[in-house]
Amino acid sequence: MLIDSTTYPKSFASDNHAGVHPTILEAIVAANHGDAPAYGDDSWTAAFEDKIKEVFGAGAEGFAVLNGAGANMVGLALMLGRYDAIICANSAHIATHEAGAAERLLGVKLMMVSTEHGKLRPADIEARLDGLGNPHESQPTVVSISQATELGTCYSPDEIAALAESAHAAGLRLHMDGARLANAAAYFGCGLKAITTDAGVDVFSFGGTKNGALAAEAVVVLDPSLTDAVPFLRRQSLQLASKMRFISAQLSALLMDDLWRRNAAHANQMAVRLADGITDVPGISLTQPVQSNAVFATLPPIVAETLRRRYLFHHWDEAAGIVRWMTAFDTTPEHVDDFLDDIRKAAATA
Amino acid sequence: MLIDSTTYPKSFASDNHAGVHPTILEAIVAANHGDAPAYGDDSWTAAFEDKIKEVFGAGAEGFAVLNGAGANMVGLALMLGRYDAIICANSAHIATHEAGAAERLLGVKLMMVSTEHGKLRPADIEARLDGLGNPHESQPTVVSISQATELGTCYSPDEIAALAESAHAAGLRLHMDGARLANAAAYFGCGLKAITTDAGVDVFSFGGTKNGALAAEAVVVLDPSLTDAVPFLRRQSLQLASKMRFISAQLSALLMDDLWRRNAAHANQMAVRLADGITDVPGISLTQPVQSNAVFATLPPIVAETLRRRYLFHHWDEAAGIVRWMTAFDTTPEHVDDFLDDIRKAAATA
Amino acid sequence: MLIDSTTYPKSFASDNHAGVHPTILEAIVAANHGDAPAYGDDSWTAAFEDKIKEVFGAGAEGFAVLNGAGANMVGLALMLGRYDAIICANSAHIATHEAGAAERLLGVKLMMVSTEHGKLRPADIEARLDGLGNPHESQPTVVSISQATELGTCYSPDEIAALAESAHAAGLRLHMDGARLANAAAYFGCGLKAITTDAGVDVFSFGGTKNGALAAEAVVVLDPSLTDAVPFLRRQSLQLASKMRFISAQLSALLMDDLWRRNAAHANQMAVRLADGITDVPGISLTQPVQSNAVFATLPPIVAETLRRRYLFHHWDEAAGIVRWMTAFDTTPEHVDDFLDDIRKAAATA
Amino acid sequence: MLIDSTTYPKSFASDNHAGVHPTILEAIVAANHGDAPAYGDDSWTAAFEDKIKEVFGAGAEGFAVLNGAGANMVGLALMLGRYDAIICANSAHIATHEAGAAERLLGVKLMMVSTEHGKLRPADIEARLDGLGNPHESQPTVVSISQATELGTCYSPDEIAALAESAHAAGLRLHMDGARLANAAAYFGCGLKAITTDAGVDVFSFGGTKNGALAAEAVVVLDPSLTDAVPFLRRQSLQLASKMRFISAQLSALLMDDLWRRNAAHANQMAVRLADGITDVPGISLTQPVQSNAVFATLPPIVAETLRRRYLFHHWDEAAGIVRWMTAFDTTPEHVDDFLDDIRKAAATA
Repeated sequence: MLIDSTTYPKSFASDNHAGVHPTILEAIVAANHGDAPAYGDDSWTAAFEDKIKEVFGAGAEGFAVLNGAGANMVGLALMLGRYDAIICANSAHIATHEAGAAERLLGVKLMMVSTEHGKLRPADIEARLDGLGNPHESQPTVVSISQATELGTCYSPDEIAALAESAHAAGLRLHMDGARLANAAAYFGCGLKAITTDAGVDVFSFGGTKNGALAAEAVVVLDPSLTDAVPFLRRQSLQLASKMRFISAQLSALLMDDLWRRNAAHANQMAVRLADGITDVPGISLTQPVQSNAVFATLPPIVAETLRRRYLFHHWDEAAGIVRWMTAFDTTPEHVDDFLDDIRKAAATA
Repeated sequence: MLIDSTTYPKSFASDNHAGVHPTILEAIVAANHGDAPAYGDDSWTAAFEDKIKEVFGAGAEGFAVLNGAGANMVGLALMLGRYDAIICANSAHIATHEAGAAERLLGVKLMMVSTEHGKLRPADIEARLDGLGNPHESQPTVVSISQATELGTCYSPDEIAALAESAHAAGLRLHMDGARLANAAAYFGCGLKAITTDAGVDVFSFGGTKNGALAAEAVVVLDPSLTDAVPFLRRQSLQLASKMRFISAQLSALLMDDLWRRNAAHANQMAVRLADGITDVPGISLTQPVQSNAVFATLPPIVAETLRRRYLFHHWDEAAGIVRWMTAFDTTPEHVDDFLDDIRKAAATA
Repeated sequence: MLIDSTTYPKSFASDNHAGVHPTILEAIVAANHGDAPAYGDDSWTAAFEDKIKEVFGAGAEGFAVLNGAGANMVGLALMLGRYDAIICANSAHIATHEAGAAERLLGVKLMMVSTEHGKLRPADIEARLDGLGNPHESQPTVVSISQATELGTCYSPDEIAALAESAHAAGLRLHMDGARLANAAAYFGCGLKAITTDAGVDVFSFGGTKNGALAAEAVVVLDPSLTDAVPFLRRQSLQLASKMRFISAQLSALLMDDLWRRNAAHANQMAVRLADGITDVPGISLTQPVQSNAVFATLPPIVAETLRRRYLFHHWDEAAGIVRWMTAFDTTPEHVDDFLDDIRKAAATA
Repeated sequence: MLIDSTTYPKSFASDNHAGVHPTILEAIVAANHGDAPAYGDDSWTAAFEDKIKEVFGAGAEGFAVLNGAGANMVGLALMLGRYDAIICANSAHIATHEAGAAERLLGVKLMMVSTEHGKLRPADIEARLDGLGNPHESQPTVVSISQATELGTCYSPDEIAALAESAHAAGLRLHMDGARLANAAAYFGCGLKAITTDAGVDVFSFGGTKNGALAAEAVVVLDPSLTDAVPFLRRQSLQLASKMRFISAQLSALLMDDLWRRNAAHANQMAVRLADGITDVPGISLTQPVQSNAVFATLPPIVAETLRRRYLFHHWDEAAGIVRWMTAFDTTPEHVDDFLDDIRKAAATA
């Protein structure tokens, strides 16, 4: 073994702390087979592209990229001109945790909306259209939502359709940051197409990395007028893998035999198990409904401090005493139950 | 096996057509070991960072990124203000094949220089300093060279030191696009440090992907005043892997036991074997000295056409009848000899 | 006469609707005197630069530019790197009415703060520093305030000093959009230096156009480490006048014999006269304290509609029934009194 | 008089060294007449817009801006996407003297062409189309020419039409930097429409400042699909004057009664007078044909040095001993003859 790594404790900090699902790792190994054209002109990428059409509909065009922020920037860039704005929740990943990439790489204004549970409503769009046509103001042209949201909640197909309708009625397009799209589909028990193509989304990302891939995301374009620009923007945005077959192979493996759903549904179930386990713990309460693989809870600082000696997790709002706990495809019931035991002990001695 | 892939012919088109070296793939598999912190706070990344210091000197700070264009953009962004310019060869990858990322993401002018064999000389720097201090002109602040160059040639340690001296004397910094740095070190039989740290380079990239990695490059910073900015620029430039351990593990594997040198030296030898094999073929001649893993040759269009039915390779300058043939870590003497046989046959019947 | 212009009614819409003060127009005419070097190498510009030092202190360096948004962008660009953020009021001109120039030209995030009467407080700065050092977040490096604010209120010298102290303590710089700096100094009866240099501002703009110039603003830099970059950024930002003498002459005329104060104090007085005149009109009330040349008032929609048949002014918030009335150097007591008469009549019949 | 200015010697350095033509100054003074709407909603601007249609055709839409670089950036931004390139002469103002605004504000690559006498030919366009469709390369979408060129030469109507045809055939648009468009029309004795609208230009600038205005340029859009974006881009690009009437009035005055042609023709004649006067001076020779108001000549360094003690002018290429002399609307035959006398004396004693 090359690296004599430390063994880390089980992490409840992020689905990015999990490793690679064995099936996906096998797909990478299997793709290491002789020479193949670079930059996507290979058969693994062709298979991925076909799979995208099978899953999201014949009009869907999929483009593999390297990470989630990259998928967002490429997907958004397709729809944005020089003086445009994006309407999004003030908790949106593009607004808070992508180091200003939206402003710098896209050059656009983010019109950030205060939300309940991280979800935009049609009225939020309508309330931000006053400046349309006014040359002194940035022009909103895209509405961007996160599925699941940064607060772990999910938009139902009907909620997405209503947002799409409001956006389209005003001449705006609807973008979805689908870094955890699989978790949302698993929550609703619906197909991926039902909450994207069928709901009127124009461009979205489909996240692989948080759901068991090594590093693989897809930009999926449903508006055919936008497709031609993707290869150029993907290249310029530093998101084009040279040995693309290894990225495409990951995404195909995830989409095959509903591995995406099995992984996401399991992670979601572990979050519910965790949330259910703390309902009766004094001093601890949920701050968001648990609809994906995240649990947001308030707990006394001393409890948080005790737990962080043995577990990895993040404060979400330290001043308010809110923590975020996340589960992943590889979280086991035993992991959760051990954590719950420790939570109860810490709370009891607090 | 998930994908029933087409088997492609042996490629002489690009070192990106090669797969992953088995040792590096093993390192990826070995890193898939329980949970680990994301974004580089893991032990594999710490080991990679230590390895960079071991190889390039105690003052070197390494940052793993996702691809070569990304490594260039992050490394250059460190050194560039709002009205700056980069002096580079007109064949430089940043100038020709990164889809305008330098202009768009960095927002700077490229002062492109006509060169012999793709190599800048100190006089090229000095000739472009007239506008320093003139507010109507972009201000050159960085000289960027490619090692090996896009034409397969290499800068010697002395040549680099002379460029560094000229650049520094004028207040400019020296950047090196080291996508094929290993091939250059192998060509000179020197260490990696001799053609980077010891030669006065300020920031460079160290390429892994073209030398046997799946997707892994490093930005190495030798000027300590520039280090603090890297994490922010890497994140904003969409080059931060969430499951970083798998990127770091590739780079560590490449740097361990001189795997980088063995891979590069082998690829170089295969290029020499190919070049040597065509010296006596009528109608074919080399256009560049062979100093790394690329062979540039003129050949009659009909010969190129015949060969492209069985082999993958690119025209470099179709009008001039110049092709580029590249070798990789996995090119075998048999591959080369078979190719040479076919070249001779095609030339004979031309 | 070349243009047979329509005669417009007296405008209460904007101080930009006023013409040019006769003294300033005379200065333009006087500058039309033979040849002179372009781009600021002329004696009128030298005189302007001296005047800036006389007014703002020996360490102040003034640079003439073409408009207010230009002054803001040049001044802010001096202080902002690639992954930075500006803390500002959500009513700030740079955030609302410069067509996204901050995001596009500067490439930075605006951290917009809800305020009372448009004014930032030190606590607003401190509350936005949590992400400092986190590479996933834009890094606040500049606090920008407007003097007077977009809501017509003014920061006192002490309030500015407190903001400067908070900003500097955290390593941030303080920028002031001084499009109406003269109105603020007139309001406090203090010198221009007292609310800029002496209060700890690092870079500010000094507005001429809204106070009687044709088109002339200045960027004033108090931090000597920032001065060298201005000529380059001014040129690149399209804010360098070729026949600079005519811009410099305007600014010198405004700064000479306190013309700036006379103009601004008069405009302020007219705003007070207007505000005083409506205190007893039923259905109309002020929404902001009147501290410069703007009056914000709620009035019934039918009253607004009636008045707009005869006067130019803007709705500020149409849904809330708030209008903005502005006065200028050329507003006369008769203008105000006529307007008040019409306001009373419209209100009486509403 | 406010400023006790130094009296400068007659300048042969730039048409920007001239002052304002009396008729244009009168137009400014005449526009200072009561209140008027800001930002272009005034009657002076309406008159200017009508005049543009009268001069350039009913389909032409004119937008007044503040300076030449601004006119270029607004006009080019209309036509450029995120991964585009501009084909231009390597002497183009946008490439050499706008401080990198094209790269930074537009974010695009300049494909610079070596030219004879500063003029692009259709073959130059065709030679740069190889990368169209290749996602690794910036995509040329605009050809930009300067009229007159930076070397004082002019494109004939037929030459422009041929460039437009080549550009359009390849799907590119043709932009013209018309900072000295008037000088070109005067040279050919044709109307402004003949070398713009009728020749197939899509977007161009019409320069006022170098031809007698204080500060006034126009962006003229002939492709109706591009018009809607101008107000937003002009505002964002910091090129929108608030007291627009004073800019519009200048442009109207210049376009009225062919003042533009009288000014430009006079300047051109003075350049010819100067060029004719040096033909027999030993050691001095022209390096470019004189087709507008610029004279490029080689002269011995000692002669240049002697002359620069009494006259303002620029070295164009100091190493090559080339100077640029420019004339303006206010250059008199006496100015030229005095200068010629001094040139002859300096040459005689050299």
